[in-house]
Amino acid sequence: MKRINKLKTVLEKGEIDGYLTMNVKNIYYFTEYMDISNAHLNLIIPVDNSPILLTPPLSYVAASEDAKECHIKNIGAQGKFFENIVKEIRELKMKKIVFDALTMSLYLKLVKEMKNTHFNYDPSIVAKLRRKKDNKELGYIRKAAALTDKGVEAGLEAVKPGIHEYEIAAEIEYAMRIRGSKGTAFETVVASGPRSAYPHGVCSDRIIRKGDLVILDLGAIYSGYCCDITRTKIVGNPSSKQLRMFNAVKKAHEEAFKTLRAGIKTRDVDAVARTVLAKEKLDKFFIHGLGHGIGLEIHEAPTLSSRSNETLEVRNVVSNEPGIYIQGFGGVRIEDTVLIHKNCGENLTKATYH
Amino acid sequence: MKRINKLKTVLEKGEIDGYLTMNVKNIYYFTEYMDISNAHLNLIIPVDNSPILLTPPLSYVAASEDAKECHIKNIGAQGKFFENIVKEIRELKMKKIVFDALTMSLYLKLVKEMKNTHFNYDPSIVAKLRRKKDNKELGYIRKAAALTDKGVEAGLEAVKPGIHEYEIAAEIEYAMRIRGSKGTAFETVVASGPRSAYPHGVCSDRIIRKGDLVILDLGAIYSGYCCDITRTKIVGNPSSKQLRMFNAVKKAHEEAFKTLRAGIKTRDVDAVARTVLAKEKLDKFFIHGLGHGIGLEIHEAPTLSSRSNETLEVRNVVSNEPGIYIQGFGGVRIEDTVLIHKNCGENLTKATYH
Repeated sequence: MKRINKLKTVLEKGEIDGYLTMNVKNIYYFTEYMDISNAHLNLIIPVDNSPILLTPPLSYVAASEDAKECHIKNIGAQGKFFENIVKEIRELKMKKIVFDALTMSLYLKLVKEMKNTHFNYDPSIVAKLRRKKDNKELGYIRKAAALTDKGVEAGLEAVKPGIHEYEIAAEIEYAMRIRGSKGTAFETVVASGPRSAYPHGVCSDRIIRKGDLVILDLGAIYSGYCCDITRTKIVGNPSSKQLRMFNAVKKAHEEAFKTLRAGIKTRDVDAVARTVLAKEKLDKFFIHGLGHGIGLEIHEAPTLSSRSNETLEVRNVVSNEPGIYIQGFGGVRIEDTVLIHKNCGENLTKATYH
Repeated sequence: MKRINKLKTVLEKGEIDGYLTMNVKNIYYFTEYMDISNAHLNLIIPVDNSPILLTPPLSYVAASEDAKECHIKNIGAQGKFFENIVKEIRELKMKKIVFDALTMSLYLKLVKEMKNTHFNYDPSIVAKLRRKKDNKELGYIRKAAALTDKGVEAGLEAVKPGIHEYEIAAEIEYAMRIRGSKGTAFETVVASGPRSAYPHGVCSDRIIRKGDLVILDLGAIYSGYCCDITRTKIVGNPSSKQLRMFNAVKKAHEEAFKTLRAGIKTRDVDAVARTVLAKEKLDKFFIHGLGHGIGLEIHEAPTLSSRSNETLEVRNVVSNEPGIYIQGFGGVRIEDTVLIHKNCGENLTKATYH
């Protein structure tokens, strides 16, 4: 209810009558009901009334058990979703509505039917609320982090010459799943040899060889909350170029971590990592931002990059992931999930750097 | 190129200048490039020009290697996606465009900026093309089916008193992943005891007990293509009610399968399963449609249900999945992935029914 009240406060300030969403993560955030049936659900949060959750019959029973604070309304087997939303909006006399996720067909029908209601697309309102995690959320993310550590440890253990990339992914995912992870937060990356130069290289059927750089990037999910970790392993004796790359990224990761705390501009943290790499003339290979927020989604607010104008707050959870990618040669990335405190960051992922 | 030409033929008939999409599956369908970086890509297929694929820098190299038939254009580090699309549409002088997937923000900006261009939302054009699988696609689906069989066999083997639902999911997913499945086609369902009455019950931490009904619903992915299977296991000696449920669903599954062939209305196939269950007075517990198309997405056209007006064609791939769900008691579902031929169906999944 606290989350709903915070939203209502923001809406009231903006003189908005209500909030409308079909985003399952946002519905979970406000109702504690995570739909598992891939059904279309719709949550309406009027500023001066109780939230209404519209569900199809298959989701009705489960939604009623979980979403205690909502009026749950079954839209029936005919799936008259549009008609039900129009009816609710009319009864509530809502004239100015913000939404962050509607199917294109529903949006087009709504604006055509309800000419006197303003539907304003603004995903930033809820994104901003979701940045600051409450204790319940942090508990879930800590559990996801512990599972993620188990996954990366199993992966580092499995990396050896002769094994396929996808087999390493199988070991990683099994280690997390058997301990209670709800699948993976994103498609597991096992990118080896020249493929490690692809920042999001997922898995192929490439066989690991001696001398490979191998990037493992993975995450568990616990009660809907994600975690994110990356480790890079060098198979066999590292070359001097590999070592130079590894040490530079490790240093960039450490120096950036030291600056993490509430009140710092995210672009300043990004700049610290970039400066470390520049000293080794490797900064031009750092082709992405330093990090991103983590929560119900693996990528959410805030963004840590040179183009970002955001400032970190207490209870933000972000990734710290410098990386360098040399096409045709390989890449190195090191990443932890970090909780932001008043004066420091706290690494929630704790696996060895190898 | 064949797929692109088929699309162009449809567009020409409708006097449409081009097609616009951000749907990664549709981009893969037309270009053979599957983006792995969760980046925003945009594919423009003008009726009288080569396709244009707009990518951010991180996706540019990989896209250039795979999407041979397209002009690949790098939108640059500033991510000027909108500006690039507007430029292309203007240069190509496209006035009437169909799209099936755009982000809400991009759509709103496009209609505001380009008042003389019509953007018509119509996801049915490509959905219809994707229904009819070509040989390459069927090869991938057959491989996904073989992996799916391995998954369900591992799951059936793991089901025994004392094990958590999520541990069974771990065994299922490992069995598929270690053999080359690209993750799972959807969140694995291990729904036991009373939870088997939830059609999409995913996994909980419930421990399997003697006497449970356990529904396993899962699928592998191979080269982007999905497969779908469900088996129900009764732990220990079945009760007479459980047996009656199981046998009725098995019979409904068999009778529906016998009717599957090109030219039949999907609602008639659904009706056959429903009639079998009605004989056992169990039809009121069959609370969903009989099946759905399967391909790049786990749920795609056609729909097999009493409300559908579709007709099966040669090379459609559909699920056949009657199920009954008795709240507080449990459920039974049996499902195979079926390829439609001229005069019959072919079960692509072949695992034992238990």
